[in-house]
Amino acid sequence: MSAPAAEQLPSCEIALSQAMIDVYAELSGDYNPIHVDPAAAAASMFGGTVAHGCIPLEPIFQSVARWLGRDMPAGAALRLRYRAPSRPGDVIRSQGEARPVERGEGGRAVVIVFALINQRDEKVIEGECEISL
Amino acid sequence: MSAPAAEQLPSCEIALSQAMIDVYAELSGDYNPIHVDPAAAAASMFGGTVAHGCIPLEPIFQSVARWLGRDMPAGAALRLRYRAPSRPGDVIRSQGEARPVERGEGGRAVVIVFALINQRDEKVIEGECEISL
Repeated sequence: MSAPAAEQLPSCEIALSQAMIDVYAELSGDYNPIHVDPAAAAASMFGGTVAHGCIPLEPIFQSVARWLGRDMPAGAALRLRYRAPSRPGDVIRSQGEARPVERGEGGRAVVIVFALINQRDEKVIEGECEISL
Repeated sequence: MSAPAAEQLPSCEIALSQAMIDVYAELSGDYNPIHVDPAAAAASMFGGTVAHGCIPLEPIFQSVARWLGRDMPAGAALRLRYRAPSRPGDVIRSQGEARPVERGEGGRAVVIVFALINQRDEKVIEGECEISL
């Protein structure tokens, strides 16, 4: 029996701006200066403001939802690693491949191997997402 | 040698509303009806709108940043599982415990075991985050 083929997920992207980060700060209540104070952030080890960690993740949530035809279901597991900060001016796109896996007892699942990549082709996040089907 | 003590992270919370979810849709470009169309969402298996997956995660990012005194660094690894959807009206709080671990060669890291919990004390997300110190 041949293994089912892997499938590419649709790629989604998000363009980051300080205005968007400011809106996200309001929305989340997370006003850490590293996100919202350009002067303080410039003097820090980051050298400028960085987006809240959730923001550059968003495109892969969108990719998964579009591919799946519904939102990420309860039970979904996510493993990821931050590789680089995301900053105002960055455009972050998702790249994902869904690999069917067998779970015994006829259970089916997919493991989605993904990366979030900026406009300089740097991986800012990489990870895997496992979803039971 | 006794193991270093585990430490509780400060708890942070976020109150979800449809208005906030709508702002997040604009910010991310993710206008999936399950997030922004109450009528369509009510007719779906979810029975109503649910927050984008990133939103209920935000309190643990804040907890980690406050405890660490800086934003989650590059190299941080996150493993998490969605247990239940988060909806307008929910108040999601973070709970986390940092456990020091040795990484050999004198390397130090912490594993933060965390949960995001709603106002009915249901876990909506649980996971771990590993950060090198």
